[in-house]
Amino acid sequence: MTVADIRFAAIEGSVSAPAGFRAAGVACGIKKSNGLDLALIVSDRLASAAAVFTTNKAQAAPVLVSKACLQVSGGRARAIVINSGCANACTGPEGMQTAEVMADTAGRVAGAAASEALVASTGVIGVALDREAITRGIEAAFEELSSEGGPAAARAIMTTDPFPKEAAVEVTTPAGTFRVGGIAKGSGMIEPLMATMLGVVTTDAQVAPALLQRALSVVTDVTFNAISVDGECSTNDCVFALANGASGVVLGDRDLPLLVEALTRVCEPLAIGIVRGGEGATKLVTIEVRGGRTDAEAKQAARAVANSPLVKTAIHGADPNWGRLVAVMGRAGVDFELQRARVRIGDVELFANGRPFDERAAQASKHLMGTDVFVRLDLGTGGDGSARMWTCDLSADYVKINAEYRT
Amino acid sequence: MTVADIRFAAIEGSVSAPAGFRAAGVACGIKKSNGLDLALIVSDRLASAAAVFTTNKAQAAPVLVSKACLQVSGGRARAIVINSGCANACTGPEGMQTAEVMADTAGRVAGAAASEALVASTGVIGVALDREAITRGIEAAFEELSSEGGPAAARAIMTTDPFPKEAAVEVTTPAGTFRVGGIAKGSGMIEPLMATMLGVVTTDAQVAPALLQRALSVVTDVTFNAISVDGECSTNDCVFALANGASGVVLGDRDLPLLVEALTRVCEPLAIGIVRGGEGATKLVTIEVRGGRTDAEAKQAARAVANSPLVKTAIHGADPNWGRLVAVMGRAGVDFELQRARVRIGDVELFANGRPFDERAAQASKHLMGTDVFVRLDLGTGGDGSARMWTCDLSADYVKINAEYRT
Repeated sequence: MTVADIRFAAIEGSVSAPAGFRAAGVACGIKKSNGLDLALIVSDRLASAAAVFTTNKAQAAPVLVSKACLQVSGGRARAIVINSGCANACTGPEGMQTAEVMADTAGRVAGAAASEALVASTGVIGVALDREAITRGIEAAFEELSSEGGPAAARAIMTTDPFPKEAAVEVTTPAGTFRVGGIAKGSGMIEPLMATMLGVVTTDAQVAPALLQRALSVVTDVTFNAISVDGECSTNDCVFALANGASGVVLGDRDLPLLVEALTRVCEPLAIGIVRGGEGATKLVTIEVRGGRTDAEAKQAARAVANSPLVKTAIHGADPNWGRLVAVMGRAGVDFELQRARVRIGDVELFANGRPFDERAAQASKHLMGTDVFVRLDLGTGGDGSARMWTCDLSADYVKINAEYRT
Repeated sequence: MTVADIRFAAIEGSVSAPAGFRAAGVACGIKKSNGLDLALIVSDRLASAAAVFTTNKAQAAPVLVSKACLQVSGGRARAIVINSGCANACTGPEGMQTAEVMADTAGRVAGAAASEALVASTGVIGVALDREAITRGIEAAFEELSSEGGPAAARAIMTTDPFPKEAAVEVTTPAGTFRVGGIAKGSGMIEPLMATMLGVVTTDAQVAPALLQRALSVVTDVTFNAISVDGECSTNDCVFALANGASGVVLGDRDLPLLVEALTRVCEPLAIGIVRGGEGATKLVTIEVRGGRTDAEAKQAARAVANSPLVKTAIHGADPNWGRLVAVMGRAGVDFELQRARVRIGDVELFANGRPFDERAAQASKHLMGTDVFVRLDLGTGGDGSARMWTCDLSADYVKINAEYRT
């Protein structure tokens, strides 16, 4: 199957939209606010499983436990359990045991082995996760599982996210129809401690674990790893994928492009949702870089721009400040040719051939006053390396949210 | 001479405190506010000259011209001219000509060749520097030159700096007494466009150009390159050093440690002054990292902490948030052992042996409420790599200053 033969249609729902998946979100008392704080996602049969984890060297217990589970099961799982309100990070051997109990309990209720459950946590760091509350929560969530449970699960993994992130797509192919659904939570400080990004994607296509892992890695790179709120990377970040084959559609190695496209259509809106809901964010900023020596260099420059406080504050103030963009390209550690570099804001070219067009500033500023902003840069090397990233503006509210006194 | 035989005494004054140096600061109409905007520093004899320039690949015209001057003169100079209010960056061939005219004029009035003058600019990017105003300004400044001119020069290079940065030291050695003086300006947006760090150090010791360059590079690394306000690096950053030998004290290669110590005693307070006057800064934060595999890794971790918005906002809010510090160490791209890592705020240990001491949070918070804050980290690798950096907190004022609409 080539991507050209395929129809993709966005549909309602999320992780429980694909056949054979049920989900639930419950309140088990971990969040002080008594809100939903535990999500359970279960497949009616053993599914292929894949994951991408934080590169932070201070890895939280659930990250270590989920890695071990995937190793032991050979990339298979039936259940994913995620709690919010407590990150179970920097919690020593007891925290590891609690994460193992989480996997045990989720596996047990789902009728699977402990190694066939994946776990994740987000919330306060350095605080013990209440083992009893979690166990009771998983049992309660199991009773609530349904194919309409996706929205509750999406809410239960939220921390300070201003809205839940859900997406699903139905893919019609000559060989049949399958679905992909997903939920995510963003970089929001929790009570207020640690920014964590979590994502779960499910599909009822049949995909071997290795292929699923390959596709998830590719897709994460251009979606969840192409966003930045503040350049921080947490101890708990992870993205999980499950493929249970319930649709009867079998995707083989040659269908990698199709699988990547289908996962991207779910992960990209989830990733963009995270940025849109970033702390203090008032604008979604799409950064497109071209003219890099390689794609990797273009991405490095895009990331430098996405994390530049001077760029992010200028955009917040609707200031078409091409000088800051030129300076960040120059310091990004990649090949850069000032004389051939270009800066466009929206469709307005503000700098090219080594000289500015300040007479267009008002027009560019008008673009920046919107909530969806495009910054288009050319590194001027003549190479065809390109990259895209999404970020948000930096507002005084970001500082307010993160400077609040915790103790 | 060993450093142990030497007495260092802080004295009043700055670049014109060493013998044979005169300085002036005048208003020549480049700054819209009509404030002082041109500084001239002249040695009564040809001096050894050294410089450290921005690593940004978008280099402003004065950076390129000063580099060429040092090349042609073989590391000699008699004059330094610096204007504020206009960065002469991204200004094409005309901007290069203007920077050359600056060097020509400064050389001519000082009775030297154009290649024996160094130039620097700070201010708005992408705007032509008024050649006539600069020429008239240099001529006027020459008339004002005096050994009391340091303070005016320090003011004339300011942009949005809240106060001028000056320092001087008298060094008494068995071979005689010499002086070192310096001025600097910080990372403040100008009108509001580009953060630029500039520094000038003068000494009346006699030092060969190569030795002066070696010492300046070492000193810059642990002073001006060990500070961060927002992690940005401008198109115009530079630090100049002149050594004219007027004291009669000759420093040879074996005196490198003494020269480094003397320059550090001027450059360190200047660098700290830049951080203290950082945009929106309310606290000076000293970050000490030890337990790194190498000094370079320790510095990389210190820099990651110094630029972390989550750490800087927590400190602003007096939140002893060891979790954010652990997470930044973990993502800094250097060797890190969570189980042996340590976090101290002031003298209060908050995290060690893989576990937190949250009962001490109130005590640590009290330390953070002061204006001089110490963050002491151990990467836990068992290595003896260490580093120190200075940064400031991130306040809502930083956002306000930098989000203001420019056009």
